[in-house]
Amino acid sequence: MLAFEKSEYLERVKKVKERMVEQGIDVILASDPANICYLTGFEGWSFYVHQTVIVALDEEQPTIIIRGQDSFGAELTTWLDKENIIPYPDFYVNNSVQHTMDFVSDILIKKGLGNKTIGVEKEGFYFSMLCGERIEKGLPDAKIVDSDYLVNWVKLIKSDNEIACIRKAATISEKVMRTVIDKIAVGVRQCDVAAAAYQAQVSGTDEYGGEFSAMFPFMSAGQRSSACHLPWTDQPYKKGESLIFEFSGVHKRYHSPLARTISLGEPSQKLNDSANVVIEGLEAALAAVKPGAACEDVEKAWNQVITKYGIIKDSRIGYSIGLNFPPNWGENSCNLRPGDKTVLQPNMTFHMIPGVWMDDFGIHFSETFRVTENGCETMANFPRELFIK
Amino acid sequence: MLAFEKSEYLERVKKVKERMVEQGIDVILASDPANICYLTGFEGWSFYVHQTVIVALDEEQPTIIIRGQDSFGAELTTWLDKENIIPYPDFYVNNSVQHTMDFVSDILIKKGLGNKTIGVEKEGFYFSMLCGERIEKGLPDAKIVDSDYLVNWVKLIKSDNEIACIRKAATISEKVMRTVIDKIAVGVRQCDVAAAAYQAQVSGTDEYGGEFSAMFPFMSAGQRSSACHLPWTDQPYKKGESLIFEFSGVHKRYHSPLARTISLGEPSQKLNDSANVVIEGLEAALAAVKPGAACEDVEKAWNQVITKYGIIKDSRIGYSIGLNFPPNWGENSCNLRPGDKTVLQPNMTFHMIPGVWMDDFGIHFSETFRVTENGCETMANFPRELFIK
Repeated sequence: MLAFEKSEYLERVKKVKERMVEQGIDVILASDPANICYLTGFEGWSFYVHQTVIVALDEEQPTIIIRGQDSFGAELTTWLDKENIIPYPDFYVNNSVQHTMDFVSDILIKKGLGNKTIGVEKEGFYFSMLCGERIEKGLPDAKIVDSDYLVNWVKLIKSDNEIACIRKAATISEKVMRTVIDKIAVGVRQCDVAAAAYQAQVSGTDEYGGEFSAMFPFMSAGQRSSACHLPWTDQPYKKGESLIFEFSGVHKRYHSPLARTISLGEPSQKLNDSANVVIEGLEAALAAVKPGAACEDVEKAWNQVITKYGIIKDSRIGYSIGLNFPPNWGENSCNLRPGDKTVLQPNMTFHMIPGVWMDDFGIHFSETFRVTENGCETMANFPRELFIK
Repeated sequence: MLAFEKSEYLERVKKVKERMVEQGIDVILASDPANICYLTGFEGWSFYVHQTVIVALDEEQPTIIIRGQDSFGAELTTWLDKENIIPYPDFYVNNSVQHTMDFVSDILIKKGLGNKTIGVEKEGFYFSMLCGERIEKGLPDAKIVDSDYLVNWVKLIKSDNEIACIRKAATISEKVMRTVIDKIAVGVRQCDVAAAAYQAQVSGTDEYGGEFSAMFPFMSAGQRSSACHLPWTDQPYKKGESLIFEFSGVHKRYHSPLARTISLGEPSQKLNDSANVVIEGLEAALAAVKPGAACEDVEKAWNQVITKYGIIKDSRIGYSIGLNFPPNWGENSCNLRPGDKTVLQPNMTFHMIPGVWMDDFGIHFSETFRVTENGCETMANFPRELFIK
């Protein structure tokens, strides 16, 4: 049931260890489910309780510490030997008195790692303040440091296997976008379009199925489309409204998000003009992508276009993308924004989603792309235009 | 666009403040999106970046501190005055150097709250170890304490308005369960059944639409059904397999989960017998629910039944349920398990999901129920039997 060959995982662990050595870290604890999956293959929806992967320089395989009832899932779906899957008793669930990190601390001590330099994901998802306090208390002889987004940064450059997954996710994205544009119309309830989007996304293609996404489909309309991340409602779409539809196909947990803007009825001049500006800016930014350029250079290309039209946007226009779990399909490593000097390299993948929000509508057009040897390649193949229904 | 009247929110804030006084806390910071929504009405999918609600004893309204691009969403969908919606600049996103909690600390100091006893959700979702460190550093004169699940405990007893929402969610759950049982068959791909489940759940009823769930539909089959929280695959269901289908309808963010077990083809004697035991145990536990009983008493009734049949299960059989967001539809307050002495009161709501996992299959039957004046009421109305397809 492994998503990839064991060799793929071994390569990942090797890269993580190299970075650990560089940063002077002996052991890391990974708590972000995306990092857990990246290292072991585990993809269960059990991250609402604590679970941890230990990577130690001295140990060949990582060890996963996981709730008892999920340990069989780890046996079935990871490449780890059974001895490296350690179940914890159920009373640790939702328990601040006997905390899972007490259990994790004991395991680290038993492994002889209790006096090492141990990196934790201080800003990672699902590693709470209490996790931090308890691991510090449980390991008084260890030096607890912030390994920050160490694994996230290893994930930045994708293997060809990973690129193949993103490509398959993009094929699903094309299908979903087509489904939504076909289905959406004045008078149709937003929830019914959302239902169709989910149906298309989860059923996938005849060749391979779809998976759950790290985020819901963003598709609110009218004034709400200018308010970013609000959910759909059960109200019908109205004539004269526009909406941004943003979502992602998923394959083997890899995402390939895509966004387009749709106008219900003839667009106003302002909407039309704004759409053209965003598309022009998106294309200028894509043209600026190449190995050696910095993330901030890409944003700059976008910014030069919108400045020409007197528009100001002060938020990032993209972020690294890949294998992910809720609540975010972004990788929390580098961003396409001023000040980010990360140098682009082949097989980095990003979701570029520039957009503008006016008082009464928002406009986004996005592409997921791969940095190639001399430029970039967009993963989905879908017309870049303001759709009118 | 408010989900409830303003008076409902005022009552919630009042109860939170009463509990704060009891615990000697002047100010709380709520970071769990479920608690943010409970207090303000905000339900955007923006919890992948930091956002915080401040409740201060001395201030009538809470204050929400939220990413700039989401502040308009808060204006549109919360009951808060605009001055109590504070946007933060986009460079704080995915930034460990300039951290959002530095911004939050500054706001607290400006409000004159920098020297107060401030409760944070140390074990809450999305309040990272780094959040904790930075708030402690940013507020050297404050006493930072663990408000633990303070808001979660206030949520425990539902208002009649909330019960009405759970009832509507249960109606969607009945519809989804029927859809899945109709659709599922030997040879149908798991992802296509999942797609139908999502379609039914999100479209909702003719009267009201469905929403995104805090968890995905659990529906793996065969050996994987014994491994709990694994996702569906794109493989076809096979003859002789059984599966647990567990999911939730959602209305105004309120959940009403439901689980049933389905056999593909005639069930084995072992599967049949096990299903009967679980149903008998579930019904015994439901019969033990009444005001004045403790959570652990309910589990005990279940345990007596399975012990009679020689089965041992050492995990909780249920948890408080209600308004929620990913990654969990449970409320992280009380649990139906040994040692939990929380006394049941009318309008508490739980998802009771006892089950057993054998080597080669798992069995669950669940009900979401409300504690009534003299017993309990299950929210969905769906036959409790092993379905055979």
